[in-house]
Amino acid sequence: MYEGVVQDLIDELGRLPGVGPKSAQRIAFHLLQAEPADVRRLAEVLIEVKDKVKFCSICFNVAEDDQCRICRDPRRDPSVLCVVEEYKDVVAIERTREFRGRYHVLGGAISPIDGIGPEQLHIRELLTRLGDGAVTEVILATDPNLEGEATATYLTRMLGPLGLRVTRLASGLPVGGDLEYADEVTLGRAFVGRQAAT
Amino acid sequence: MYEGVVQDLIDELGRLPGVGPKSAQRIAFHLLQAEPADVRRLAEVLIEVKDKVKFCSICFNVAEDDQCRICRDPRRDPSVLCVVEEYKDVVAIERTREFRGRYHVLGGAISPIDGIGPEQLHIRELLTRLGDGAVTEVILATDPNLEGEATATYLTRMLGPLGLRVTRLASGLPVGGDLEYADEVTLGRAFVGRQAAT
Repeated sequence: MYEGVVQDLIDELGRLPGVGPKSAQRIAFHLLQAEPADVRRLAEVLIEVKDKVKFCSICFNVAEDDQCRICRDPRRDPSVLCVVEEYKDVVAIERTREFRGRYHVLGGAISPIDGIGPEQLHIRELLTRLGDGAVTEVILATDPNLEGEATATYLTRMLGPLGLRVTRLASGLPVGGDLEYADEVTLGRAFVGRQAAT
Repeated sequence: MYEGVVQDLIDELGRLPGVGPKSAQRIAFHLLQAEPADVRRLAEVLIEVKDKVKFCSICFNVAEDDQCRICRDPRRDPSVLCVVEEYKDVVAIERTREFRGRYHVLGGAISPIDGIGPEQLHIRELLTRLGDGAVTEVILATDPNLEGEATATYLTRMLGPLGLRVTRLASGLPVGGDLEYADEVTLGRAFVGRQAAT
């Protein structure tokens, strides 16, 4: 329907997550009218990101070098390891400024329905990493959903024999939310995990 | 917060229309994990679209040559001209297969609040085009909103002295909609424009 290359662009944009056919069309028309330099910059950064971005050889976090910024930082506590599913979880936790240890990025969560078992995740590398005894606590910070919980349960069992402290992030009511809108599982967990009022 | 180039990508994506910070982040993470060849293809089509896509020298439609496909097509009726705001309106009208004439793309609509007056649109070129008398009917197919109506009113006044047939697209109830949900202006127009039942 569109001139060849315009349709190609709409098709490519439509493959991005969360970009439906209408959005792809709107973005394409915007780019058609945009300054050539702006469009070129987007194209360049796309190529640059694939050329430059690697994954840290220690923790599998996103890195521009062999090791990520956090693994290279000597001020980070090497005795506490936070295990997350994805790079974006690292960023979310960093934003809280509550954690000064290091990370291990699994690269996903166990999900039999998607064909992802423990061997598809960086679990073997985690066990190797824990081998030297430098880490004394592992915080399992997988997502609070079915796949994340399954992954955490699996890891708890795997790490048990190592004699480490293994912890999970607290479940409970999200701050700023309304109690009446919390789902029953969350509200139930908030009761189970209740703490002395201070 | 993110490694340099990842943040650059999120920033560039966030400049696209309808892509908020969360979507930009999601798309960026998707691209980080995508096949390099797929990302490269998107980058290439972005550059190609700016290199290849021009605007038709006759009607200002999108074109890969000096003239667009429609202006080059000898089967299109040169006596009827449909005036639209944007390229996407051409595509929408082409999709109906109801129109076999040619187009003139204004490049927008009159909108004093956005600083767009008649001189920013391809109105002068429209008048030049009508000069040779080949066109006998001009269909004003601007958007049925404030700016589109203002533009159509302006054009009606401009074209009056030329002795052409000047028409507007019909206003009325959208097909497939519910009468009770139509706004009062649309419903009012549907009454004014009522036709003999067949």
